[in-house]
Amino acid sequence: MTPDNDDSSGNVYHGLRETVTPPDRQVVADILLSTGVFFDSEIAIGVELLDERLAKGPSSGYHFVFAIQDGREVGYACYGPIPLTRGSYDLYWVAVCKEAQQQGLARRLLRAVEQRIAEAGGRIVYIETSSRTPYAAARAFYRRCGYEQVAVLRDFYAPGDDKVIFAKGVDRPAT
Amino acid sequence: MTPDNDDSSGNVYHGLRETVTPPDRQVVADILLSTGVFFDSEIAIGVELLDERLAKGPSSGYHFVFAIQDGREVGYACYGPIPLTRGSYDLYWVAVCKEAQQQGLARRLLRAVEQRIAEAGGRIVYIETSSRTPYAAARAFYRRCGYEQVAVLRDFYAPGDDKVIFAKGVDRPAT
Repeated sequence: MTPDNDDSSGNVYHGLRETVTPPDRQVVADILLSTGVFFDSEIAIGVELLDERLAKGPSSGYHFVFAIQDGREVGYACYGPIPLTRGSYDLYWVAVCKEAQQQGLARRLLRAVEQRIAEAGGRIVYIETSSRTPYAAARAFYRRCGYEQVAVLRDFYAPGDDKVIFAKGVDRPAT
Repeated sequence: MTPDNDDSSGNVYHGLRETVTPPDRQVVADILLSTGVFFDSEIAIGVELLDERLAKGPSSGYHFVFAIQDGREVGYACYGPIPLTRGSYDLYWVAVCKEAQQQGLARRLLRAVEQRIAEAGGRIVYIETSSRTPYAAARAFYRRCGYEQVAVLRDFYAPGDDKVIFAKGVDRPAT
């Protein structure tokens, strides 16, 4: 765990953790459920990525960062290199549980992910999300964090539910 | 195998096969290698998808169609439903070996895939490809087959090597 208590918002922030253990299956499920945004099938996929990581280690291509507050995991991000690319990464998830939102934790997780990716030689981070209304706050958040909307795939998830793709270069100074 | 000898180009066309057996690992590798377009790492992924299919069956999410000419597999397509979507499919590969090109086999494979997807309730087929020059003929081919370029992700594969995304609705009559 990285001690990291300099949150300028004044909230007590206790750190990040990048190791992954089996109890994190429940942690991930609880965080995703608490947001109220994700379908059950999406939560299942979130846990599946953690299972892949537990089974195969870093070679799974799935990396996790957990945000800890008062000794409890209140948010996490999952990212990894995109196969067959040189330096492109996907941010698969960034989620903070309901009670810990509005404290800058998601931004902090995102910054940590971007830093890890840049350190690993990554060039670009991609985020794919839905055009549905429950994701409007997420899309605004990605824009505030310097992500640019680079594509919209109409009706990708379902009729009327587009895929929106955001991208940010991380070999440039972070915003 | 589906007998199918009505190719209007006048070439003898012997059929399609959708079953998958272990010797198809070599078939897939040979076809991809013969095109001269793919990196070794891409060929490895092509074979990996076949391995997934052999290991898990249709629930792998990878479906194959082989084109047979004179008793030999000369081309194939691989496609599957995109997880977390309702009716979106990816065409992962369509490839015809060098000696059998220019006979309409790729188009026939693509049509077979679109028909299978439509029958399975699919709505949209996506094809992702590279902006590099060796893929120019493939991109022109997709356009001729009714695919529309819906997105370009700059520098996705590598600096100067964009991802180009094509899409086609298959619940409409095929073109």
